[in-house]
Amino acid sequence: MRILLIGNSGTIGSAVESLLKERGHQVIGVSRSSSPALDTADQSSVSAFFRAAQDRGEQFDAVVVTAGGTPFKPLAELTAEDFATAVTNKGIGQIAVVQAATPLIVDGGSITLISGILAEIPVPDGLAASVANAVVDGFVRNAAGALPRGLRINSVSPTVLEESWEAYASAFPGAVPVSGAAVANAFVRSIEGIETGQVIKVW
Amino acid sequence: MRILLIGNSGTIGSAVESLLKERGHQVIGVSRSSSPALDTADQSSVSAFFRAAQDRGEQFDAVVVTAGGTPFKPLAELTAEDFATAVTNKGIGQIAVVQAATPLIVDGGSITLISGILAEIPVPDGLAASVANAVVDGFVRNAAGALPRGLRINSVSPTVLEESWEAYASAFPGAVPVSGAAVANAFVRSIEGIETGQVIKVW
Repeated sequence: MRILLIGNSGTIGSAVESLLKERGHQVIGVSRSSSPALDTADQSSVSAFFRAAQDRGEQFDAVVVTAGGTPFKPLAELTAEDFATAVTNKGIGQIAVVQAATPLIVDGGSITLISGILAEIPVPDGLAASVANAVVDGFVRNAAGALPRGLRINSVSPTVLEESWEAYASAFPGAVPVSGAAVANAFVRSIEGIETGQVIKVW
Repeated sequence: MRILLIGNSGTIGSAVESLLKERGHQVIGVSRSSSPALDTADQSSVSAFFRAAQDRGEQFDAVVVTAGGTPFKPLAELTAEDFATAVTNKGIGQIAVVQAATPLIVDGGSITLISGILAEIPVPDGLAASVANAVVDGFVRNAAGALPRGLRINSVSPTVLEESWEAYASAFPGAVPVSGAAVANAFVRSIEGIETGQVIKVW
């Protein structure tokens, strides 16, 4: 398959890119610093990227997003702007990708977004991330039946990564971290499988 | 109890106000058109309202929100701005209320927000509402343990209302509508009960 991978420079993105290539797929990796660049937090960047791709006649069998940061702070310190930033960067940004990418995806192709465990399981400083992840999962559950031409859509919801465990262990008491490779398998399940409207949990 | 009810002019809000008064509570009802006004879609309105209330030394045993509209359109017509509007009006707006109201709520008091069935069950034109409701439920599940002084927080998630059934029946195939009074009981359960971090479903 020809797969557009948005956010290929991150820990999860690079694990997904490796695994997809190992499985024989052609991966077009983009990020905020690639050329052309794609910043999911910036609506105009998303529109410009897909407009240019459409002009070049590009088509994808699958579009995958592994990008989207959110602020981590205690509730008392989180401002309404922090929540809006989290929702814009990780939530609305991925929705914008879905809207803009849909015409470039082949019949029966798929879209896979990234959410995270905090949508369902709280940790002390993770409120803004929770809300952003809830946007993604809520969208996916509901968009599946609204997409045209048999397109499928799922989110992959990882817990904290082994690769980030040293930095986040104290923020995730009792969590059992998973490897980037395990998360990458969930993306393969979404891309090569038949599920749609599902939150694929890696926890 | 002394209860602040934000959005008392709507169908659900007026049912909640009636039931709370019947049960002997003192209800301070506010809306976009009350004086002082409170528009949850406008961050500065939320801040100004609670700053003034704090200056007057007001305290509440419970704060309840029943306000928050979202656009209804097919996915193909929904813009990123529509999603942002939905999330701001119904999602971030209610989070802003929680943040601003918290210092005015007595120890052990409660906050009850409004979400809706579309967070979990899709209908054709309800994508923006789905996402906004997912924000509310995601926040509530995660904020419960982060609030100070034993404050509780829940959301009430209604299906379509009997009172709106004529207008929405075609948009909710197979739905069984519920009365505003049934939804009002869910608010009583949140306010007078002991639950926290829960999505109280009325469907």
